[in-house]
Amino acid sequence: MSQECTITVNYIGKTAEVFCSPGSILLESLTKEQTAFIDTPCGGKGLCGKCKILVSGKDLPPLTQKETEKLTPKEIERGYRLACMTPVVSDIEVEIETNISKATILEDGVEFDVDLLPSIRKQYLTLEKPDLEDQRDDFSRVRDALNIKGFRMPLQELYNLPETLREHDFKVTAAHNKSYIIKVEPGDTTNANYGVAVDIGTTTVVVYLLDLYSGAQIGAVSGLNSQKSFGQDVISRINHTMQKSEGLEHLQKRIITQLNEMIWDLAERNGIAVENIYSIVLAGNTTMVHLAAGLPPKYIALTPFIPVIKDRIVVPARELGIEISKSGYAYILPGISAYVGADIVAGTLASGLAGQENLSLLIDIGTNGEIVLGNNKGLVCCSTAAGPAFEGAHIRCGVGGISGAINTVTTGKTGISYTTIDNHRPLGICGSGIVDALAILIQNGIVDETGRFLSSEECRELHIPLADRIIEDESGYAFVLAPEGETKNGEPIILTQKDVREIQLAKASIAAGIRTLMKHTGRTEDDIVTVYLAGGFGSYIDKESAVQIGLIPERMENKIKVIGNAAGTGAIMSSISENCLLDCDRIVKLATYIELSSSPVFQEEYINNMYFKR
Amino acid sequence: MSQECTITVNYIGKTAEVFCSPGSILLESLTKEQTAFIDTPCGGKGLCGKCKILVSGKDLPPLTQKETEKLTPKEIERGYRLACMTPVVSDIEVEIETNISKATILEDGVEFDVDLLPSIRKQYLTLEKPDLEDQRDDFSRVRDALNIKGFRMPLQELYNLPETLREHDFKVTAAHNKSYIIKVEPGDTTNANYGVAVDIGTTTVVVYLLDLYSGAQIGAVSGLNSQKSFGQDVISRINHTMQKSEGLEHLQKRIITQLNEMIWDLAERNGIAVENIYSIVLAGNTTMVHLAAGLPPKYIALTPFIPVIKDRIVVPARELGIEISKSGYAYILPGISAYVGADIVAGTLASGLAGQENLSLLIDIGTNGEIVLGNNKGLVCCSTAAGPAFEGAHIRCGVGGISGAINTVTTGKTGISYTTIDNHRPLGICGSGIVDALAILIQNGIVDETGRFLSSEECRELHIPLADRIIEDESGYAFVLAPEGETKNGEPIILTQKDVREIQLAKASIAAGIRTLMKHTGRTEDDIVTVYLAGGFGSYIDKESAVQIGLIPERMENKIKVIGNAAGTGAIMSSISENCLLDCDRIVKLATYIELSSSPVFQEEYINNMYFKR
Repeated sequence: MSQECTITVNYIGKTAEVFCSPGSILLESLTKEQTAFIDTPCGGKGLCGKCKILVSGKDLPPLTQKETEKLTPKEIERGYRLACMTPVVSDIEVEIETNISKATILEDGVEFDVDLLPSIRKQYLTLEKPDLEDQRDDFSRVRDALNIKGFRMPLQELYNLPETLREHDFKVTAAHNKSYIIKVEPGDTTNANYGVAVDIGTTTVVVYLLDLYSGAQIGAVSGLNSQKSFGQDVISRINHTMQKSEGLEHLQKRIITQLNEMIWDLAERNGIAVENIYSIVLAGNTTMVHLAAGLPPKYIALTPFIPVIKDRIVVPARELGIEISKSGYAYILPGISAYVGADIVAGTLASGLAGQENLSLLIDIGTNGEIVLGNNKGLVCCSTAAGPAFEGAHIRCGVGGISGAINTVTTGKTGISYTTIDNHRPLGICGSGIVDALAILIQNGIVDETGRFLSSEECRELHIPLADRIIEDESGYAFVLAPEGETKNGEPIILTQKDVREIQLAKASIAAGIRTLMKHTGRTEDDIVTVYLAGGFGSYIDKESAVQIGLIPERMENKIKVIGNAAGTGAIMSSISENCLLDCDRIVKLATYIELSSSPVFQEEYINNMYFKR
Repeated sequence: MSQECTITVNYIGKTAEVFCSPGSILLESLTKEQTAFIDTPCGGKGLCGKCKILVSGKDLPPLTQKETEKLTPKEIERGYRLACMTPVVSDIEVEIETNISKATILEDGVEFDVDLLPSIRKQYLTLEKPDLEDQRDDFSRVRDALNIKGFRMPLQELYNLPETLREHDFKVTAAHNKSYIIKVEPGDTTNANYGVAVDIGTTTVVVYLLDLYSGAQIGAVSGLNSQKSFGQDVISRINHTMQKSEGLEHLQKRIITQLNEMIWDLAERNGIAVENIYSIVLAGNTTMVHLAAGLPPKYIALTPFIPVIKDRIVVPARELGIEISKSGYAYILPGISAYVGADIVAGTLASGLAGQENLSLLIDIGTNGEIVLGNNKGLVCCSTAAGPAFEGAHIRCGVGGISGAINTVTTGKTGISYTTIDNHRPLGICGSGIVDALAILIQNGIVDETGRFLSSEECRELHIPLADRIIEDESGYAFVLAPEGETKNGEPIILTQKDVREIQLAKASIAAGIRTLMKHTGRTEDDIVTVYLAGGFGSYIDKESAVQIGLIPERMENKIKVIGNAAGTGAIMSSISENCLLDCDRIVKLATYIELSSSPVFQEEYINNMYFKR
């Protein structure tokens, strides 16, 4: 056995080599080098089976018990292994397949109209030159020209100031916010003022590049959150920070590295120097924001759920390790509570909800389900433990919104039909597809009001169509959406009894959250003028199906307005206008957080909303 | 020859070993390791002869031309060498003698009475504990208890906050300034709040340790500015930053290292943890302040003499490399111009001049001579190129205020008598001694009104006493203050024709500066109620002698008030009270700087004040 093993990795059409010492676990070797994003919802414990990859080579170690449980015989035959369970003992080649598609992440949001008033502004100055009659210091000369008192300038910028002023004959451009002259550049550079807006989701990260001179969006890039290898949900990531002494540092480094790469990529593709990006506005849930800022999220996970800070954080970007202009600033948007974070504040901003007299509801179903009810007088909000079922997690064939995911399911004369993202051969089912499928099962009576799957025999007796798609295995009944002949990996795509239960719990949770907020404010469905549906799932979901499964109250179907990645839009707006940043602070002040875990109203509504209506 | 040479250094009663590669210059080897402060006014060019030290060992290299010029035959016989000219080629032992005495630096200033209101205050808080009814984030919990809106907290402190709060059951002490909660500590630590005040002179550095809970001064320590090996005056240090690419970095590191050592020393001696020092207030001339902040002083040296910044600088102390509490802040006091710096602002604060209706004059004669004239309505000020003659520089036998320096000279029936600092055997003459000696020479007619030395023959003809003390060598006449039998190094201590010229130029400069300010404001000697004399030299000088040589106008002798190290006192006051910090800003706003280099009034007065009056 050699001193070091080589892993040849084929991933997204690229090949890379990773070296590790013999006996290293494959998953760790791959994620350590950031070679690939591998989905590990269970945190690498062999429980979820999501890290399966094709492994080839000589002297492969024998299959573990967990692999024989999680992999189908066909997968085993083809050479699939669970990366988290497989030690590397020789040179091998791996193919990372289930994640080869770039996630189709919603980058677009609603349209908005805000004044161009970025936090960092640039001003061209033709300064008077010093002489014995005018011995003002360099700093005062710039400050006086800007005509704003009380300005300061960071030491490292003062360091460069004398030569900068004299390089172009005291003609300079000053970049400044309200308190600091953050940078002085020789000549007129007013038109080179860029910013990035970021939405850090638990699952996905979107970065927008903005021209803050014109207010235009130049580009956007998205990717799976690279912290995913440390766990799928916020709790498993928080656990990582608590269990490993350097866990927090790891997670922060991971997301910051990813952001830097995405920013570099965007800047390069658009021919922009990162030195001319002076601001980054970050939205994200409270845990993501803590991790990005390097703040310990421990007490977010423990009752009574206390964040370190929920105020807006404004710091030099380099303090976070963000590689934009060395003088650039990072603005982390404020949150409302441990589970209603800056992403929801940004989404609320984007929806316009907090600026209207009319009462509106905002529902953001992502890895969690957050709900806001209110208007310009006040807001109530809550977070439901909806879990990531609608994002495909904990669902047997569930996947995110990736190429090949079944995203719509309909019935017609020819029986079941479906579409997939990018029209690829189906490899799983994503949230909107799951909701459609379940709606059909309920409509047809295959799943009853209590959520129970009927057997094909029962269905046939009741003359229920599609009964032939019901199968049964050791874990119960399931419905075949795509038979094995149609799918990419040769395995059928099914919706199981257990999947239905997951969705049932999740939808009950969200429906009960909505009811709780309404009861708290004494309002009814009729008082609500608009229902804003935010987030990737909310954008693709079929409204009728959502109402069918009881996710959204019946009388609201026609009030629904899809606002896409509202968190991202809010971050963009806050980049473009300082007033929007201030609006975020105002939204936080307006908001009252309702803790559902201790709410008897919620408990009652949760039970009330558990069943399905046919 | 071995790979490495060992230098055994005897210095201030201690022995240390320094290692260097063969061929290294002795001075560089000694200063690189900061083993000793060696006086090098010429910057190590073999011109001033001040770096002479006793060297013993085998295989010493031959004397250089410059050493034979600068060292007397007796010194050569005893084994003196110029450290800057001597390569180390074997193991040697050196004795650093001329600097063995710790400088007697004025640490005491005037008494003052200010409110105890330090910039960093501490407050003990018993916080409500969080529960599901009170889910405020940790930061808001602290901020709300402090009852001040708009507070922020640095990220690295937020990082520690959750565990700090929970360590002592939500009983904590918050240290804060007006904008930031800089630190939260478990339990009640309100009585552990210390600060340091620093006066960075070109020649000397004084550090005061203050108890900001009681307002008491705990201790003080002083030393020669360790940047002196890069040059005696500000211009040679600025040159160093311009000539060497890392020159500025060197100089900054040098002074910061020295400050850190002095702070450590003070803290240790007084049993205080440096972690409990939260603030450092720095005064110093504009160049010293630039160097401490790492700001390029280049344009201070070039006409029209422009500093990078003269505003007060407030930064986290760690940004300067200052090792107090990691959360501590540094306050660099503001200056008025390139040559009227923060030391003069602090001195003006300490004098109380800017708070009085009466017109006062402040004269600070240090390495430069700065003058302020004014009251609470306005100030005018200037800086004279008095040079460091009054500190003993450029004077043949001149030394700083060290042990063995002749500090007073008088005449009586028995002829000349003198005293020395610490009553040691004389080894040179310091500023106050020089002024006394020159006053005697003028009074007796040995030096005439034009500053010319009379020969002993001329004196005898005119029946001038003390004529026998006049000697003559290749460079002209000189007056023997202490014959060789009385002195430490066996060389006579003399005042030469050239020395008289140095003093003559310096005193003309200061006297003309005073006149220029009076003319500028249309005021006369009679309008001036108090003359504050600041600085080490000003404190020890004999007022009568000062008037005799024309340094201070005749009619002011009885108005003189000695205020000691006023810059240090001002820094202390600014540490103790934030109001004093604000007063410094106010003094800067009140002040008008008069540039003497372009002033015809000054030119005329300079010539008028050149001669002596008998």
